[in-house]
Amino acid sequence: MENYFKLEHTSKDSKARAGTIETQHGRIETPVFMPVGTQGAVKAVEHRELHELQAKIILGNTYHLYLRPGIEVLEKFGGLHNFSNWTGALLTDSGGYQVFSLQELRKISEEGVEFKSHIDGSKHFFSPEKVVQVQKIIGSDIMMVLDECTPYPATYQQAEQSMELSLLWARRSKNEFVKSGNEKMQRLFGIAQGGMYFDLRRRYIEEMVGIGFDGYAIGGLSVGEPPEMMYDVTGVCAELMPADKPRYLMGVGTPENILEAIEMGIDMFDCVLPTRNARNGQLFTTRGKINIRNAKYKFAEEAIDENLDCYASRNFSLAYLRHLTISGEILGLQLASLQNIAFYLWLVRTAREKILKDEYVSWKKEVLEKL
Amino acid sequence: MENYFKLEHTSKDSKARAGTIETQHGRIETPVFMPVGTQGAVKAVEHRELHELQAKIILGNTYHLYLRPGIEVLEKFGGLHNFSNWTGALLTDSGGYQVFSLQELRKISEEGVEFKSHIDGSKHFFSPEKVVQVQKIIGSDIMMVLDECTPYPATYQQAEQSMELSLLWARRSKNEFVKSGNEKMQRLFGIAQGGMYFDLRRRYIEEMVGIGFDGYAIGGLSVGEPPEMMYDVTGVCAELMPADKPRYLMGVGTPENILEAIEMGIDMFDCVLPTRNARNGQLFTTRGKINIRNAKYKFAEEAIDENLDCYASRNFSLAYLRHLTISGEILGLQLASLQNIAFYLWLVRTAREKILKDEYVSWKKEVLEKL
Repeated sequence: MENYFKLEHTSKDSKARAGTIETQHGRIETPVFMPVGTQGAVKAVEHRELHELQAKIILGNTYHLYLRPGIEVLEKFGGLHNFSNWTGALLTDSGGYQVFSLQELRKISEEGVEFKSHIDGSKHFFSPEKVVQVQKIIGSDIMMVLDECTPYPATYQQAEQSMELSLLWARRSKNEFVKSGNEKMQRLFGIAQGGMYFDLRRRYIEEMVGIGFDGYAIGGLSVGEPPEMMYDVTGVCAELMPADKPRYLMGVGTPENILEAIEMGIDMFDCVLPTRNARNGQLFTTRGKINIRNAKYKFAEEAIDENLDCYASRNFSLAYLRHLTISGEILGLQLASLQNIAFYLWLVRTAREKILKDEYVSWKKEVLEKL
Repeated sequence: MENYFKLEHTSKDSKARAGTIETQHGRIETPVFMPVGTQGAVKAVEHRELHELQAKIILGNTYHLYLRPGIEVLEKFGGLHNFSNWTGALLTDSGGYQVFSLQELRKISEEGVEFKSHIDGSKHFFSPEKVVQVQKIIGSDIMMVLDECTPYPATYQQAEQSMELSLLWARRSKNEFVKSGNEKMQRLFGIAQGGMYFDLRRRYIEEMVGIGFDGYAIGGLSVGEPPEMMYDVTGVCAELMPADKPRYLMGVGTPENILEAIEMGIDMFDCVLPTRNARNGQLFTTRGKINIRNAKYKFAEEAIDENLDCYASRNFSLAYLRHLTISGEILGLQLASLQNIAFYLWLVRTAREKILKDEYVSWKKEVLEKL
């Protein structure tokens, strides 16, 4: 396995790292935030706008894409890149999280998971092997293994059982991945489970590193546990993961969560917060969080966020965005989504700059006070 | 009144005209289509995208803008241009049509119309004078007088009474407009009413021209009458309107309607069809109308519309747009809206080229066959 990930620098003041990931669809500088495009589109944002905001990689979801547009369509188009005309890099979540969220609609066995489509109730079966195959068809630059997301809370025994299943699946995923050739130079990441139990996390990661993946993710967090617990588990996991592979904290989180995790040595992030909150009128700005519906912005002439180099941030007043939001104008969703993604990308880009200058911790403190 | 409208050419094969309208926010070439931005935003389309598509003028609605963001906000910002940061030209409808659509919520007298806000039920009063004043605050380049849109069907007597009221209001609007100065070089258009009765339309237009406006609109059409009747009334009206002023057919219509009306000498159009239909998955393309939800596009690799110079039209396949639409992705609304507006603007721009070459009628025939 050649060295597609390069660790460039570790900040002298912490474990925060700067690196690069090479893909068939461009180079990604880490730490990186990946906007979520579950169904092959980031909500309310055009591809060219993602490029403009310097998003190098976005997320897709295997479960959703498998159901819609469906594998035959993706096969005909030669993958999601061609189908959607997204030219940047692409990571696909395995869809395990979505399948297990279906609750009533699924049946788990060692072999895999049977589930009913949330769209039309049709029956489907995902095995670890199948999920690798589907992601091969999607053509994602980074694929994730099928895992069982351990619920919170879980007893030690539950977490251990769940972890054993995920480990078994991780091994089968790797075998399938190796067996099936790799003409698109795709990468396969493992996902650490083990609930909130440090020793389970440790065992999992040791086994997983033994199997050998292109990168290592931390799953099963941001599932309702207190933030301190999330930080503790993240710290323990990051510590155990090999330094020469990217580390990805899945589905996390707030700007604060991300900055704390970067300090622990995490490289990759994704989260629906920036786009989902945008659609609720919640803005992330360099001056802090804003509820744009608030009456105090009715006459506010100031730009949405002067400090960001983004069409939405600089060209429109808070008052205009408030008006659009209150009036239910789609343009309001568009501008708010641009602002929030611009903010998240600015945050990790600046984190990287500070890491390279060994100033990460002092900058983090400063920026968290402002936010 | 200086000559802000220049009639450049009348096609030798018909009454179709090409001209230019000068505004404080740029020159408009006619025939022109004006995308509708009722609340100060075109639905699902960014301002920069409207510029990209060469939209020179968009519509706002006085009734909606008066209620939201409200006059105090627009006053503080010095008008809708500054508030919304739309730098092109702006025409505002008087809001008469909206107020009269409220039905239960309004009370008409000679003085004006009392109505209740559709948003919060609060009571308001529009007089012709007030509507001019509100549009002065909005700062629209072209303002429309308050009129009563005669319903269809209406008896001769109903249409005549309604027309008398609109005429009275037109006179008062002009007086208010003259009285109040014109530092923003705004223009005021009259609106012909008279129902489907030719002699009422004739009387109305003669009186209206006597009052003297910067342009003349045809109102009260596209209200449920058969298309032949609409064409007949449009033809009669256009004939009677002075050649040296722009002629505007309000709220019309389909591509076919627009091409027929251009042939009768109409210069300006607005309609919600391109944006509203886009949101229902109905596309206007140079190959004809398309329902993008249709299963036959599931695997369709062809571009949405190769013949249009538009981001959406050329960069995305029918299959991808179908997927976005079926999956409820906002990006689907965005791309479909871009496509439809691009199509309408292409249509009138090409009409203009053909008029200048005296080839309008043969081109119209050709293009209608394709659509």
